[in-house]
Amino acid sequence: MTQAKITRSVVLLSGGLDSTVLLYHLKSLSVEPIALSVNYGQRHARELEAAASIARMIGAPHTIADLSSISPLLGGSALTSDTIPVPLGHYEDETMKQTVVPNRNMIFLALATAFAISSKCDSVAYAAHSGDHAIYPDCRKDFADAMEAAVSLCDWTPICLMRPFVNMTKADVVRKGHDLDVPFRETWSCYQGHTIHCGECGTCVERREAFVLAGVPDPTCYASRV
Amino acid sequence: MTQAKITRSVVLLSGGLDSTVLLYHLKSLSVEPIALSVNYGQRHARELEAAASIARMIGAPHTIADLSSISPLLGGSALTSDTIPVPLGHYEDETMKQTVVPNRNMIFLALATAFAISSKCDSVAYAAHSGDHAIYPDCRKDFADAMEAAVSLCDWTPICLMRPFVNMTKADVVRKGHDLDVPFRETWSCYQGHTIHCGECGTCVERREAFVLAGVPDPTCYASRV
Repeated sequence: MTQAKITRSVVLLSGGLDSTVLLYHLKSLSVEPIALSVNYGQRHARELEAAASIARMIGAPHTIADLSSISPLLGGSALTSDTIPVPLGHYEDETMKQTVVPNRNMIFLALATAFAISSKCDSVAYAAHSGDHAIYPDCRKDFADAMEAAVSLCDWTPICLMRPFVNMTKADVVRKGHDLDVPFRETWSCYQGHTIHCGECGTCVERREAFVLAGVPDPTCYASRV
Repeated sequence: MTQAKITRSVVLLSGGLDSTVLLYHLKSLSVEPIALSVNYGQRHARELEAAASIARMIGAPHTIADLSSISPLLGGSALTSDTIPVPLGHYEDETMKQTVVPNRNMIFLALATAFAISSKCDSVAYAAHSGDHAIYPDCRKDFADAMEAAVSLCDWTPICLMRPFVNMTKADVVRKGHDLDVPFRETWSCYQGHTIHCGECGTCVERREAFVLAGVPDPTCYASRV
């Protein structure tokens, strides 16, 4: 299936920076986006409010799939546990392994693909980029390739799995978002469950760095000035 | 990963005949089964009671993942709709396409794999068999092969996706269940939401045929004697 045939896509919208830029990117290509977010019991459920707000701003229908009741199946991650603290520092640090949610990407892609079939979309899009981290097994290229094959076979009409940012860095994504007038201020990255970005957890550190590397002003209000 | 290394497996247990035989089969191989069922808003939720009862009988821990709140994402199937009747007849009939639930297998396998990772299992097992029907795109061998590859890559320690019945017919599965003293009477196949098997829907017809072909007495009470 070539890119030219894509007309309507379920977009996995976390409410974070990358998936928001993806939403605007698809819209700029005249692809009709149907936004899907997932409540999996994450402590940073604040991102779901961000996702709803962003979808409203761009005029995309938005659905939140509520998987919070199955969060025990996804046990052992700092993102879903009340007892494991979110580690601070850089993604390369060993402690960041505590933020792995078992098989999250496969679950999200499976739900998005089901929704694509039932809502007559031709594709599913997600915002994997080249900076996705080596600590996450389900961010590997081989995994994504296998999922692309599975997604293309799960219905009689093939569903296309789109990863348009897969060869871009997060700084590239910020640059693209800047060009598309993405409202970065509305996006949410922080893994802590607070009301403003902590500025110190792995995803905050990565967010700050990406703006600096992109040479784009960062409108985010961080609790830490570090 | 060879079969010899499998010690503990999440088993997708619908409460039907095939997955129940699978549970007994794994137990007979000294694999420790962890049973997982999924409530996806199916009208035949009676099968979940069957699954719970069977897991209790064999002494396996049993979890029901409640996805009923996301059944709108899985729309358009006679199995989840209040308005689309369950078609009667044979699986080869065109009308049976109404029983397709979008991407059900990928969602189930994704959840089972997450549960396998979080509960320290080395494998996921499901009861695909050679009679799984050409109307279901996600019963195709190519789809299952792609999922096997994805499942093996979604964690650093590979999870093995087991389909031990994949080259067996449903009659073969009945024969194996008979040899293993499976309590067939406890299993539930019918797609209708009634209290006894209707005997006329696609899955009832297939169930009846399998017992006849296997030469095994069928203990099921059917509403229809046809």
